[in-house]
Amino acid sequence: MAESSAKRSIIEPRTLKGFRDHLPADALAREWVLDVARRVYRGYGFAPIDTPALEYLEVLTGKGSEETDKQLYRFTDHGGREVGMRFDLTVPFARFAAAHVARLGLPFKRYHMASVWRGENTQRGRYREFVQCDFDTIGTTSGVADLETLLVVHDLFVALGVESFTIHVNDRRLLAGLLDELGLAARQTVVLRSLDKLAKAGREVVAAELAAQGVAAGAAERLLAMAALEGPPRELLAEAGSLAGGSAVAAEGLGSLAAVVEGVEAAGVPAGRLVVDCGIARGLDYYTGIVFETLLDELPSLGSVCSGGRYDNLAGLYTRQSLPGVGGSLGLDRLLAGLEELGRLPDRETPAEVFLVFFDESRLADYLRIAAAMRSAGLAVEFYPEPKKVGTQLKLASKRGHPLAVVIGPDEFASGTAQLKEMASGTSTTLVWQGDADRLAAVVRERITKLPSVER
Amino acid sequence: MAESSAKRSIIEPRTLKGFRDHLPADALAREWVLDVARRVYRGYGFAPIDTPALEYLEVLTGKGSEETDKQLYRFTDHGGREVGMRFDLTVPFARFAAAHVARLGLPFKRYHMASVWRGENTQRGRYREFVQCDFDTIGTTSGVADLETLLVVHDLFVALGVESFTIHVNDRRLLAGLLDELGLAARQTVVLRSLDKLAKAGREVVAAELAAQGVAAGAAERLLAMAALEGPPRELLAEAGSLAGGSAVAAEGLGSLAAVVEGVEAAGVPAGRLVVDCGIARGLDYYTGIVFETLLDELPSLGSVCSGGRYDNLAGLYTRQSLPGVGGSLGLDRLLAGLEELGRLPDRETPAEVFLVFFDESRLADYLRIAAAMRSAGLAVEFYPEPKKVGTQLKLASKRGHPLAVVIGPDEFASGTAQLKEMASGTSTTLVWQGDADRLAAVVRERITKLPSVER
Repeated sequence: MAESSAKRSIIEPRTLKGFRDHLPADALAREWVLDVARRVYRGYGFAPIDTPALEYLEVLTGKGSEETDKQLYRFTDHGGREVGMRFDLTVPFARFAAAHVARLGLPFKRYHMASVWRGENTQRGRYREFVQCDFDTIGTTSGVADLETLLVVHDLFVALGVESFTIHVNDRRLLAGLLDELGLAARQTVVLRSLDKLAKAGREVVAAELAAQGVAAGAAERLLAMAALEGPPRELLAEAGSLAGGSAVAAEGLGSLAAVVEGVEAAGVPAGRLVVDCGIARGLDYYTGIVFETLLDELPSLGSVCSGGRYDNLAGLYTRQSLPGVGGSLGLDRLLAGLEELGRLPDRETPAEVFLVFFDESRLADYLRIAAAMRSAGLAVEFYPEPKKVGTQLKLASKRGHPLAVVIGPDEFASGTAQLKEMASGTSTTLVWQGDADRLAAVVRERITKLPSVER
Repeated sequence: MAESSAKRSIIEPRTLKGFRDHLPADALAREWVLDVARRVYRGYGFAPIDTPALEYLEVLTGKGSEETDKQLYRFTDHGGREVGMRFDLTVPFARFAAAHVARLGLPFKRYHMASVWRGENTQRGRYREFVQCDFDTIGTTSGVADLETLLVVHDLFVALGVESFTIHVNDRRLLAGLLDELGLAARQTVVLRSLDKLAKAGREVVAAELAAQGVAAGAAERLLAMAALEGPPRELLAEAGSLAGGSAVAAEGLGSLAAVVEGVEAAGVPAGRLVVDCGIARGLDYYTGIVFETLLDELPSLGSVCSGGRYDNLAGLYTRQSLPGVGGSLGLDRLLAGLEELGRLPDRETPAEVFLVFFDESRLADYLRIAAAMRSAGLAVEFYPEPKKVGTQLKLASKRGHPLAVVIGPDEFASGTAQLKEMASGTSTTLVWQGDADRLAAVVRERITKLPSVER
């Protein structure tokens, strides 16, 4: 038997290219961001939904671009059905809304936080499995839903403790109106796609692209001037108005932007958090009204960590009922990369604030009673399962990042005391608990809340 | 244009057989259970991890039974790799542990709550996509980890508000020792599989199966007597000891059970929550020590909603390092079905406690200020986005299950009052806030906490 097990070949425990394991430190950070997002979304009345990871292929390929179709994980299932794994949360939501709108009632606000899969080129540091956190309001064209969308984004970053971020907002109708006036309406998609590159690629590259598309020099000039407009809302709106020309479409865009700016102010968002940025078009044709991106001021090169906008019709592929809406999507992986770069992610591998050392084997029942009291007091407690050397246990507590270790050995039990060791500083203090586990738990809890490292 | 859109064919917004959309009421209940489980798991120091939905096929098929292999969703990916979707969280955890054990350190405690996929026969009300919530401690053979596992299960159901549940615990070594003594060790797997059916199929069916397996009548008698033992731990342990015979293996099993029973008591678990049940074997060969199942007393026919046990070696397929462990798995879908049947799931389609009616269009800025103040006070607030008729808005508030509606029209603004309408009872009260949004928020919050319907 020993022989056969020694000879048995081992399967290499590898993951697929573009896929990752999330170890505790990483998974804790992810759960924290998802919790914060959920709390904020819920605060505005968005309700959770979920949809299957697998859908009929025709549902997924109906809307997607050629690029997403190519990246789709697709196969034939046991029943001979052509199926695919969802590549975003918008297409499943469109299908969901079409199927359930009568039961849901309108307006309807949902959030959906789930994994999506794309067989992308992984060269650019992209993953083939990643999490999206979408929220949308459908069934209303009210500007109140637009401004609430921006309030959600604002509250989300405040709740995440990000102090300096800026929401860049525009309305697609400004550029659309100008394109109309310039006689370029038919080429809107390609032109907007070029203008969208302005911040990254620079004016010369975009000007050359526009020229190659046959846009006259004067028209390109006006488009580039418009796309370069960025700044404090009230000032910018006047300037944008004069540049956009007098079309009714542009006027609608200006009106919606002005209402959003006013509403955001009324709701108490500090000045400076929102800028009007006429260069934002967002690649997709999908958007028809306001569009926005969110940048971390300290890491502008990271790109937008939360984007979205208003659209005219969510689910036209699946129902004849028109479902206008507005929404946004938080890019979890990109945001976490940013927060890590800024040193904003705590370095802990454990959710437990307290590490309870298993010191005196004969006192197991007491340790269990103490751990239970601390948990009743709302603390998360790691109780080491074996009465090993205290040094061995504390070494693990330190590696894992437990903020506080509680050491109670025979002497401490005899004197009704406990050693509290702050793992970051290494300082120990003695506390008196006289065998009263609830009292011990209360003091430990008090101490924990004062430690700087325990924010979440 | 109108013509082409009218003629465009519509894709039917259907889901695959065995897959489901989760609408808000359902999704809220699921998030609630997952939140509670996460809080309890974390309270014991279990840390979150995640693994990819897709794995190399060889990783998944290495361990699985013929049945799971057949149910596996598998295909060839863009890079020509044979891949499969995970069908449980145990195999990915084994692969994960083998890959990362050096970095993680031992003992290591993790929870993992995620979807798994099985192309099962859906006739029996089974789904092809469902969520598992696993927690395991690996790298220790200590009985403390065993009893902590049962404490987690206990705390979990208490936290879920389930008042009457029973954890049935056994140790596989009791039956294994008896089988040894009866000379049936080689047939352990099939015999245990038969005995596992005792509660459901009855004594006669199992006796016939054992006879068909060539188990002598006297031996079958002893096995059946042992498997029928169930009751209060201390009484049962003595009886089990005399039935199990004198083998060293059985003695180990008895010792571990006795330690678990004692520890659970010491940690404050009320008598009656834990019974020793010598009939529990759990189908898998995998388990080698304690095994347990959890039944809702009011719904025994539902079957176990949380099961697990101790195993000798988690990851033998992927590493030569021996990783003993113990853990459990909460069956989210089955538990939710049970809670629903017992009427324990609130009937709400929204997370927002407050529905703020949009009454007077000219007061938008005030409504935004009020909603912001209520959110700052920790309330979730749905603000209706359009100034429609109050009746229309309240109808939606009632359908969705918002506990409280706040109505402030021109008269109320003029007099500094607000109408608070409890949606369940229909009673309205007038409150005075004098334009102070924070004061309004504080009163509404106070009122909300007193409503019986708002437990979570």
